[in-house]
Amino acid sequence: MISGTICALSSGAANGAVAIVRLSGPQAKEILNRTVARARAWEPRRQTFCTLLDGADVLDKALVTYFEAPHSFTGEDVVEFAIHGSPYIKGRLLELLCAYGARPARRGEFSQRAFLNGKLDLVEAQGICDVIAAGNKAAHQVAMAQLDGKLSARIGQIKTILAELLAQIEVRLDDVDEEMTPLSNDFMTAKTQEVLGHIKALADTFSVGRLIKDGLKVALVGVPNSGKSSLLNALVGFERAIVTDAAGTTRDTVEETLDIDGQKIILTDTAGIRDHAVDVAEQEGMRRTVRAMEQADVIVWVTDASLAVSEPEKNLWAQIKAQQKRTLIVHNTTDKTPVPMDLPADTKGLTVIEVSCKTGQGIDEVKAALTRDLSGVQPADGLFISNLRHYESLIKAQTELEESLLKLDQGGEIVAEHLRAALAHLKDLTGEITPDDILGIIFSKFCMGK
Amino acid sequence: MISGTICALSSGAANGAVAIVRLSGPQAKEILNRTVARARAWEPRRQTFCTLLDGADVLDKALVTYFEAPHSFTGEDVVEFAIHGSPYIKGRLLELLCAYGARPARRGEFSQRAFLNGKLDLVEAQGICDVIAAGNKAAHQVAMAQLDGKLSARIGQIKTILAELLAQIEVRLDDVDEEMTPLSNDFMTAKTQEVLGHIKALADTFSVGRLIKDGLKVALVGVPNSGKSSLLNALVGFERAIVTDAAGTTRDTVEETLDIDGQKIILTDTAGIRDHAVDVAEQEGMRRTVRAMEQADVIVWVTDASLAVSEPEKNLWAQIKAQQKRTLIVHNTTDKTPVPMDLPADTKGLTVIEVSCKTGQGIDEVKAALTRDLSGVQPADGLFISNLRHYESLIKAQTELEESLLKLDQGGEIVAEHLRAALAHLKDLTGEITPDDILGIIFSKFCMGK
Repeated sequence: MISGTICALSSGAANGAVAIVRLSGPQAKEILNRTVARARAWEPRRQTFCTLLDGADVLDKALVTYFEAPHSFTGEDVVEFAIHGSPYIKGRLLELLCAYGARPARRGEFSQRAFLNGKLDLVEAQGICDVIAAGNKAAHQVAMAQLDGKLSARIGQIKTILAELLAQIEVRLDDVDEEMTPLSNDFMTAKTQEVLGHIKALADTFSVGRLIKDGLKVALVGVPNSGKSSLLNALVGFERAIVTDAAGTTRDTVEETLDIDGQKIILTDTAGIRDHAVDVAEQEGMRRTVRAMEQADVIVWVTDASLAVSEPEKNLWAQIKAQQKRTLIVHNTTDKTPVPMDLPADTKGLTVIEVSCKTGQGIDEVKAALTRDLSGVQPADGLFISNLRHYESLIKAQTELEESLLKLDQGGEIVAEHLRAALAHLKDLTGEITPDDILGIIFSKFCMGK
Repeated sequence: MISGTICALSSGAANGAVAIVRLSGPQAKEILNRTVARARAWEPRRQTFCTLLDGADVLDKALVTYFEAPHSFTGEDVVEFAIHGSPYIKGRLLELLCAYGARPARRGEFSQRAFLNGKLDLVEAQGICDVIAAGNKAAHQVAMAQLDGKLSARIGQIKTILAELLAQIEVRLDDVDEEMTPLSNDFMTAKTQEVLGHIKALADTFSVGRLIKDGLKVALVGVPNSGKSSLLNALVGFERAIVTDAAGTTRDTVEETLDIDGQKIILTDTAGIRDHAVDVAEQEGMRRTVRAMEQADVIVWVTDASLAVSEPEKNLWAQIKAQQKRTLIVHNTTDKTPVPMDLPADTKGLTVIEVSCKTGQGIDEVKAALTRDLSGVQPADGLFISNLRHYESLIKAQTELEESLLKLDQGGEIVAEHLRAALAHLKDLTGEITPDDILGIIFSKFCMGK
């Protein structure tokens, strides 16, 4: 239900010098006039220094801005209060606004109203969320291309080509007297392939786009005392995980987020895998190791270069191999006397990096190997798909287009049906025909105050 | 050194939908024009939707406001960027502003500039800090009266009476021909007493004002297992401290902040005091108990009503008494069979409250007793002194005035000297004649971005 006047703290929950409280809806101006010491003719967009009252008491001296519908973020009447960022004022102002007729906004409700009022399409709205969450340059650029409308424009171009082809087919379906020249299969194939090419190119960016957005998940695995925690520390650059000489110290998984060359890398240090777990906690640790490998994009197998590959390590290698994921081998602690390399024969072809966590040797090579897939890929137009919902819409549209190609000989009616379905999936992507309940779910994942 | 153009994140460090970055100084407009995609004639105070660039890339779409000197918070040219609150954008925008000629603001530097440009006096500036820090209504109101100028106005009135008296004395010192009627000692005494009365009344509010601002510090003390942690939990209303039946569980001090009727109460649960500490940690705990009592405004002695007062408790009572602080006695666990009350004879006259932490009996009485001193005092004009610096200036002025009264017979020159000194202390309070190094220290305690 999008109705009423809503309010929320739009700046973060932490206390700062300034906080922003946002109010949006038909009653915004009326509520504003009850909040300030002196009602006035609010010149839109002008920051006005006002005294906010709480009964007879001064609640705050604040900069207040009124945005007149439809020229606001939501498209409704909006008021923004730039108040002193105290816990008391923030809480009390929201209480007062609600007492005067507003209600607390749901997550994403400002953005949802902006979408419903045509200020943003769904791709742009989701871009806001991703922009706010972006912690590094790569993720920021992918998200900004969404918010900025670049991705919507690209999808718009694809929709236009598809819609034109569909219109040419449909006009002939209506042409009962068959006065028009029929479209050749070659023409329809060429046009459909053109659209398919664009869609596939975009969908192909998802494998990297999702990693840029969510980060590359890397599982560090190895038998106890192989030096996983030391490697994690060397990569992170400070003592994060507890490192001791007693085998099996890391019982739980330790997660650490790195920014390597503007890319987000999530390292998971797992419990050392042993053949015979000494206690329940360690068995649980092993289950977590397998789970971490299942969830990882890349597995890094850490093995002690000063020791021969043991039976437990051979068993671990079998488990790693079963995951069928990109795997790096780190030959660790080369500052001790290494034994001749005796890795299992079927590790051939894998990247093996010699690392000393004490001297730092090889650490940069590991970093470079981890980010290789991320930094290498760059679509010509710089646009990445990074949301699963967008990817799924593209794949559905692609499937319909491929179906249409298979049925070219079955007549315009059937071909048109598939093209219409493909077009609908693209419209779903940008929110033109997305059902309300789906919209509700999408916006509920937004942050508060947006 | 107040020079150059400064920038800082003015909203809190946490990520929210919106963040505010502030830029102030002579180059603000020039730097703004390098930040946005399209330089323009910036209409003051108007929020303008702009594209912020990072080289060729879009950094953000943001609302930008330019405030023209002197009509801004600092009195300088100011730009406020309302950006998307992502960690990346916040950090990158500040980097760009610095690359274009700004530098990171020091703590309180915006407020310091506002003060130096005559936008605020020192009392009002310090009020900003206190307003931002206020977490409850009472502290907020005390701070707002400062920021709002009410306290400054009150001190201004006092200064005026004093300055007028001083002028009447000084004009007679210049009156070498003695053409003017001399001021009678009665008149000078009456006027000085009038000023003294105002100053004393204000200074007297400090004992409560500082408690309202900083919170009432309450030390819960008692022998092991007397139920201090249970009382803390009952007062706080949820399981904060770990409660077990083994004596000596609370090794360290546990601090908990409560809001009782809009008043800030800081409860400290200390290690149980024993006669013979069983280990080093417990000895350290006892030292902390004594320290907590030294730092407390109120001591609450918790004693188990089902047990006779033990030797260790008698020793503890001696230590409590030595503190000479307001003390409450909580007779705990009255749901067990109580023994006849056998408190030491010299506890007579102290408030004893019967409490059951299980049923909640007596908890409200404890709360009321704790806040009694805070909620009772209310100056007629609602003004409290809450900063030590202000209090000290008032006491220094008071001392000078009292000196002047003692020296009324020693001639106008000496009296005038003391009155001038008193006036100087009042001017120091509002920052009219505060030395630069002192100002630097005062503003360095402000929060970032203010």
